[in-house]
Amino acid sequence: MRKVAILGIGQTKIDEHWEKSLREIGGAAAFAAMQDAGIEKVDTLFVGNMLAPIVNGQNQLGTFFADWIGLWKQEAVKIEAACASGAAAFRAALMAVASGEIDSALVIGVEKMTDKAGRDVTAALATAADADYEVEHGISFVGINALVMRRYMYEFGWKHEDFAQFSINAHANAMHNPYARLHEKITVEKFEKSSMVATPINLLDASPTGDGAAAIVIVPAEKVQRKPRIIVAASAASTDTIAVHSRKDPMFLQAAYTSSKRAYEMAGVTPKDIDLFELHDAFSIMAALSLEASGFAERGQGVRLALENKIGIGGEIPVCTRGGLKARGHPVGATGMYQLVEVIQQLRGECGKTQVDGAKIGMAQNIGGSGATILTHILKIDD
Amino acid sequence: MRKVAILGIGQTKIDEHWEKSLREIGGAAAFAAMQDAGIEKVDTLFVGNMLAPIVNGQNQLGTFFADWIGLWKQEAVKIEAACASGAAAFRAALMAVASGEIDSALVIGVEKMTDKAGRDVTAALATAADADYEVEHGISFVGINALVMRRYMYEFGWKHEDFAQFSINAHANAMHNPYARLHEKITVEKFEKSSMVATPINLLDASPTGDGAAAIVIVPAEKVQRKPRIIVAASAASTDTIAVHSRKDPMFLQAAYTSSKRAYEMAGVTPKDIDLFELHDAFSIMAALSLEASGFAERGQGVRLALENKIGIGGEIPVCTRGGLKARGHPVGATGMYQLVEVIQQLRGECGKTQVDGAKIGMAQNIGGSGATILTHILKIDD
Repeated sequence: MRKVAILGIGQTKIDEHWEKSLREIGGAAAFAAMQDAGIEKVDTLFVGNMLAPIVNGQNQLGTFFADWIGLWKQEAVKIEAACASGAAAFRAALMAVASGEIDSALVIGVEKMTDKAGRDVTAALATAADADYEVEHGISFVGINALVMRRYMYEFGWKHEDFAQFSINAHANAMHNPYARLHEKITVEKFEKSSMVATPINLLDASPTGDGAAAIVIVPAEKVQRKPRIIVAASAASTDTIAVHSRKDPMFLQAAYTSSKRAYEMAGVTPKDIDLFELHDAFSIMAALSLEASGFAERGQGVRLALENKIGIGGEIPVCTRGGLKARGHPVGATGMYQLVEVIQQLRGECGKTQVDGAKIGMAQNIGGSGATILTHILKIDD
Repeated sequence: MRKVAILGIGQTKIDEHWEKSLREIGGAAAFAAMQDAGIEKVDTLFVGNMLAPIVNGQNQLGTFFADWIGLWKQEAVKIEAACASGAAAFRAALMAVASGEIDSALVIGVEKMTDKAGRDVTAALATAADADYEVEHGISFVGINALVMRRYMYEFGWKHEDFAQFSINAHANAMHNPYARLHEKITVEKFEKSSMVATPINLLDASPTGDGAAAIVIVPAEKVQRKPRIIVAASAASTDTIAVHSRKDPMFLQAAYTSSKRAYEMAGVTPKDIDLFELHDAFSIMAALSLEASGFAERGQGVRLALENKIGIGGEIPVCTRGGLKARGHPVGATGMYQLVEVIQQLRGECGKTQVDGAKIGMAQNIGGSGATILTHILKIDD
């Protein structure tokens, strides 16, 4: 396998883009990435997307975007793994370049989901859960996460306000990210007074959806002259049961454990070596569970990292340095690509007030469903 | 890149499977393939599917099936490229094994589309076309193909009945395929009297949809002891504009030309070397266009191959040897995998009355949208 490196990145602001079509949003990120990469053509296009067939009436997004951005005759394909679609598309691209089958790939993670009414989007998001054994019984996606959070609080003795710092940290970091959906500082008081969504998950536990796209161009490492040269040191994917109730232990992200373990081995590092961690805080409970399963905290103690503010810039393990899903926003099929772009921005030292000093190794973890599909990527500066 | 070979295949009968769920259909093909391969576990699962998010309310089919068939903790992902989803999933698996990243892959192409009313399925299928510039104006997917067929007949001087042999051949071959949806011989008279769908496409020009799944296990070639050893000699994908009206020449399948040309080069063969060709006859016009773009006939002369019956078993270029989309059936996201399974059955010599004598090199071509995404695979016996 060939070593693969980053040639360019691009992203759009996450927002309700009423004035822009699916094409335009994905295209904007793609053009930005290709401009940043200094190229006009790639061998193959990989698109990560979850909801376009349902929300936008559009399938075949690979070809759809190859057509729009002028990659005529080039190969193109769409990858879907619910909210992990972005990282799954990146991994497919990575394997294609690493194999030698292609020499360059553009990956776009894209979602335009605010065209539909809220209840329709909620129904569309529920396709990430088990249609026959979960959704059929009337539960929504946030409802499933609420059951997990409630049990976690009971089991490990945490109060709701103990989770506040996850959201406060994300919102604080997003203040300095022009691409973030929310630019609003929050406090513990505000966190506690926020409207309830599905007990105990309130509005400030939950990430906002949105329209957005992020893109990356990858090539064999030897073709990158740009400094610092950032390589993909590890890529690993794992799965768990699709329905949460089928798991022996619904509060342990088995697939995060397996994929991060494999990624650490592949990159030859341990959690201590990770300078920043873009985790998948779709709900505050998921931030805690990701930290635990990925080796940053003991079982039931992920919340403590937040409480003791070890997750901020300059902390033990900075997370959500650009705002995370919570405040940067969560355009579902695009999220995994935003996380990777943000890790790259950190390694390039482009993050201004939320720059992690001397960041050399960054990790991104993207989750599809309620912990059903989890991909972990480690990127590092290749000296 | 490592050479990749076939370890096992499986498929289900295409039908309206009211009594079976999406899980059960995909699982049946997967278990059959793993049993044929003599293994119980693979590294990674790739699923090709187009309509489950819309028709079955189920996304994340990779993990969904990994869970169902017991590939716990294994990596799994879904690939979507409209009706080319099956072959696109196969190609993604191929690159993953060829790269050395994984050592075995199971690919499932699956679709359960008959649960919805006909008009809902028609709307779902239209997501393969351009939502903004085609579907928005009210045209259906068969409508687009009808415009192409009408223009082709005008341009090259063919009558509707000249296309009959494509369907007659497919129906005749399907008589000997227990997995085919239709077991019914047809004649030119029947073909001409069939009810109109979208002029000039009538019911016997159009392939029937259906529920079904086909699966293949692939591994590095050196791990296959079974004789004959069948390897993937070439895999190529190409795209065209998603909307047919954007093409300079709507009657030329540019992406079939590009992908078959690349595949011939990769396999070191010419069209003359191909012993059988499983082409994508979603509509009879597509059979003609595929033959032309893939080098088996001059422009506008694909129909002549059918008229002169050169496409039958024992003919110059046998096509749809197991019934093709027309009579085996077209469970959209699964079709590309059925085609590949059928090529493998031919190379193994398992096709009884429709066996192509001494078949050593077979080709499969899978089309997504109206010629928008096209993948060509060449499989051969590796002596």
